[in-house]
Amino acid sequence: MTPLDALPVRYADIQAAAARIRPYVHRTPVLHSTQLDALLGAELHFKCENFQRIGAFKARGAHNAVFALDDEDVRRGVATHSSGNHAAALSLAARNRGVPAWIVMPSNAPQAKIESVRRLGGRIQFCEPTLQAREAMAAELVAREGARLVHPHDDLLVIAGQGTATAELIEDVPGLDAIVAPVGGGGLMAGTAVAARALRPDIRIIATEPAAADDAYRSWRQGRRLRDGSPDTIADGLRTTLGAHGFTIMQALLDDFATASESAIVEAMRRIWQILKIVVEPSSAVALAALLENRERLNLQGARIGVILTGGNVDLDRLPW
Amino acid sequence: MTPLDALPVRYADIQAAAARIRPYVHRTPVLHSTQLDALLGAELHFKCENFQRIGAFKARGAHNAVFALDDEDVRRGVATHSSGNHAAALSLAARNRGVPAWIVMPSNAPQAKIESVRRLGGRIQFCEPTLQAREAMAAELVAREGARLVHPHDDLLVIAGQGTATAELIEDVPGLDAIVAPVGGGGLMAGTAVAARALRPDIRIIATEPAAADDAYRSWRQGRRLRDGSPDTIADGLRTTLGAHGFTIMQALLDDFATASESAIVEAMRRIWQILKIVVEPSSAVALAALLENRERLNLQGARIGVILTGGNVDLDRLPW
Repeated sequence: MTPLDALPVRYADIQAAAARIRPYVHRTPVLHSTQLDALLGAELHFKCENFQRIGAFKARGAHNAVFALDDEDVRRGVATHSSGNHAAALSLAARNRGVPAWIVMPSNAPQAKIESVRRLGGRIQFCEPTLQAREAMAAELVAREGARLVHPHDDLLVIAGQGTATAELIEDVPGLDAIVAPVGGGGLMAGTAVAARALRPDIRIIATEPAAADDAYRSWRQGRRLRDGSPDTIADGLRTTLGAHGFTIMQALLDDFATASESAIVEAMRRIWQILKIVVEPSSAVALAALLENRERLNLQGARIGVILTGGNVDLDRLPW
Repeated sequence: MTPLDALPVRYADIQAAAARIRPYVHRTPVLHSTQLDALLGAELHFKCENFQRIGAFKARGAHNAVFALDDEDVRRGVATHSSGNHAAALSLAARNRGVPAWIVMPSNAPQAKIESVRRLGGRIQFCEPTLQAREAMAAELVAREGARLVHPHDDLLVIAGQGTATAELIEDVPGLDAIVAPVGGGGLMAGTAVAARALRPDIRIIATEPAAADDAYRSWRQGRRLRDGSPDTIADGLRTTLGAHGFTIMQALLDDFATASESAIVEAMRRIWQILKIVVEPSSAVALAALLENRERLNLQGARIGVILTGGNVDLDRLPW
């Protein structure tokens, strides 16, 4: 196994991120429910990043990336081509730093996401709804405005920032046997894995993914990063393909991987709403869904498990039940 | 104004309740959002009783009533004729005390409520769906089984138990200028008022109610307890008519009263879900709705306001938007 300090993100980077972002993000609460414990036959502790600034863990990585830049480097702003939570997170981080955030969005982006970015002061540039058009326009902005590109997940500072959630969780809940998070681009999972392995060397690190968007799972099994397929899952935050840095770190640190069916994701989401009384987006329910669907194989009976609930930005008019 | 210690519930009763129920209920968190503050132009601190055991503040009053009884008095169990949150709360309290809970429910009660009471070990007795039939069957149970009736709100121990939420809120958020809660039967509002006035003599105590179920508001204005009308509001927890003890205490301690339209209640509920990322039932949204609708008259600009969010038991298949 790769030694921890040979990886591109080290625990010291996560500690530095925690200190850097502290004034700008919330230390989110951890929830626990005996009713959900009984359902799985294990002890579940949910790190509630739905209560994070902008309603998702992405506020952590974006603030770390924006505040780690020198004044000179950041002066002309930052840019990204995400239309999801990272766009709102980068807009907020840039506003807190006092610099512009350029957000490239497809012309068909949902109105709610456009408004959320605008409310936070992000400058939106619309483009054709293809990945190619988005990347081209982002590159143009970087060239024209001198803005710094902050990638949603394939960025070492972003990964270190995301790892701060797990560092807090492990501090708040002593004795965790396992940590579970979902994989989209791999930024959260990579940061989670580094923090968990550094703080609790014997912890089991389990990645989860929708079965309908399992490129990271297949990459992990085959030992090479696959970027095939056009994932279609209700977990809209996890439709991204796996990034290079995330893949390297996951390959070194993951103990296990479990996927969840679409129906299990919807059911788990509903259970979280009904029992924990919190609003989470479908991506947040993937970890619980995968644990429930793979209960026997994972053999977690009686274990104390930390679960990262990633965000709560959901369209209340289009609930999946 | 009536001196505090001439009222049927005193602050010492709330302190005794807090000590008595501590092992059985949660100390719920307080949430705050700059986005909601901006909407009202004041500082709002939400006491989240949706995270309470059984998903509502009712767990407090029920545990206080059940655990205050002597062993001999409680041996044959407790009974009530609520079909809402109090039924679940009493079932849990009785289970924790190791005695039976008899719950009289109308034959047309929603399946979800029946299951929730059953899950908690409550023994359900179905009756015709009229208030008369419910009261008659409860009286019969008391006579036949020797069970002790625990009224949902018109009970001094229940009122004292409900007051513990405000005592915690005032401890957690220093310097509150006002406290706001909704009125159904008046148990929560009465307990809230006693705790608030005892701990912060100058605090403004504001009751709120749906305009479509404003019997308490009219009673307060006219100085006599009205029990007319058959309230029809989306805030199902507040359809009850006002109790005698609740009325006495509210008459002595309230500083103001504000009502909310049905559309404002739905809008406030949606805002709480969307911004605070928590699941609350319509009754929980009445306070925020009334504050927003009566903003100018209440003149709370810049004030620090505590709001009791009463519960989170809502049918996710029948959301009002």
